[in-house]
Amino acid sequence: MPPVNPRLVRFTAGATGPWRILGQTAVCGPDLPLAPRLDVGAAEAPPPDAVWMLHGATSNQRYTTEAEQAALAARQVAPGRVEARCAALIPIRKSAEWWALSQDRRREIFEDRSHHTRLGLAYLPAIARRLHHCRDLSTAEPFDFLTWFDFAPDDAAAFDALLAALRATEEWRYVEHEVEIRLIRDED
Amino acid sequence: MPPVNPRLVRFTAGATGPWRILGQTAVCGPDLPLAPRLDVGAAEAPPPDAVWMLHGATSNQRYTTEAEQAALAARQVAPGRVEARCAALIPIRKSAEWWALSQDRRREIFEDRSHHTRLGLAYLPAIARRLHHCRDLSTAEPFDFLTWFDFAPDDAAAFDALLAALRATEEWRYVEHEVEIRLIRDED
Repeated sequence: MPPVNPRLVRFTAGATGPWRILGQTAVCGPDLPLAPRLDVGAAEAPPPDAVWMLHGATSNQRYTTEAEQAALAARQVAPGRVEARCAALIPIRKSAEWWALSQDRRREIFEDRSHHTRLGLAYLPAIARRLHHCRDLSTAEPFDFLTWFDFAPDDAAAFDALLAALRATEEWRYVEHEVEIRLIRDED
Repeated sequence: MPPVNPRLVRFTAGATGPWRILGQTAVCGPDLPLAPRLDVGAAEAPPPDAVWMLHGATSNQRYTTEAEQAALAARQVAPGRVEARCAALIPIRKSAEWWALSQDRRREIFEDRSHHTRLGLAYLPAIARRLHHCRDLSTAEPFDFLTWFDFAPDDAAAFDALLAALRATEEWRYVEHEVEIRLIRDED
């Protein structure tokens, strides 16, 4: 096989890693096995004690317009700020019905009626976000997307509000598997 | 690593396989190594004599509207008809500039100005087509897409016309690597 996709990120739950798993909720569908810590990084050799691993690749935008992309670029920050000691990993799988919809129908649900990008924009720059795609990986992954968020402890309530708003949308009716993993980074 | 994505297809050039490579052209960018035959199938253990291998996964539509999807569904056929003894594999890579464009700008170029779907529709059902995505695989592939076409020998001139029409479009200005591999299946 050729070398690893440089945009591929591996999330490894197990005994090690800088992130401590504070809590985990199976929002719909089966839960993931419990583990004490999470590591986030390139898909090199996994640690021998991994409890689970999920892979996803950052990729191009699928729904945003040029105006939305510009609005995001003006406000968004990359995950990894020093003050962002809180994080969440939210793996999601959408239904076969969603994937069979045409691009214009998915866009209508995603933004015209669910305001996915607009909702996220309202929480920028406090809530940083990075989306990883799993659906078209070489490997069969149990999810379509892994979204990574990080934020300062004072913004945890805002993050809860963002999640609640997204889960109330028409788009979320197509989510058939979702796990919410909340994390904290130990002080250096 | 988890099991292989069931939508993953491997194209293997080498000494074996049902398809004889009739000719190969590097339309832009570097050529692939020459080989006598091509095998198309699931990504199981590759033959030890492979000259090159390319992987791609079938996936959801990225640009088509509901009306276009219905028009395609009404006319298209799956590759593999008995009479379709001619085939072509066309691996393509698009530029970083293309992938940085927003979804609406890519759609405008792809269909509103380049009529990609409309051009393909005009050659259905004679020219069967299956698109494989490589850009988001776990592995670093040299192309973004692998398109497989098959058709009867009498439709080879029509296929040449379709390729010429696509290559004359605005969309093709973003293609920075393209190889055309023409094939024939031996009579049983």
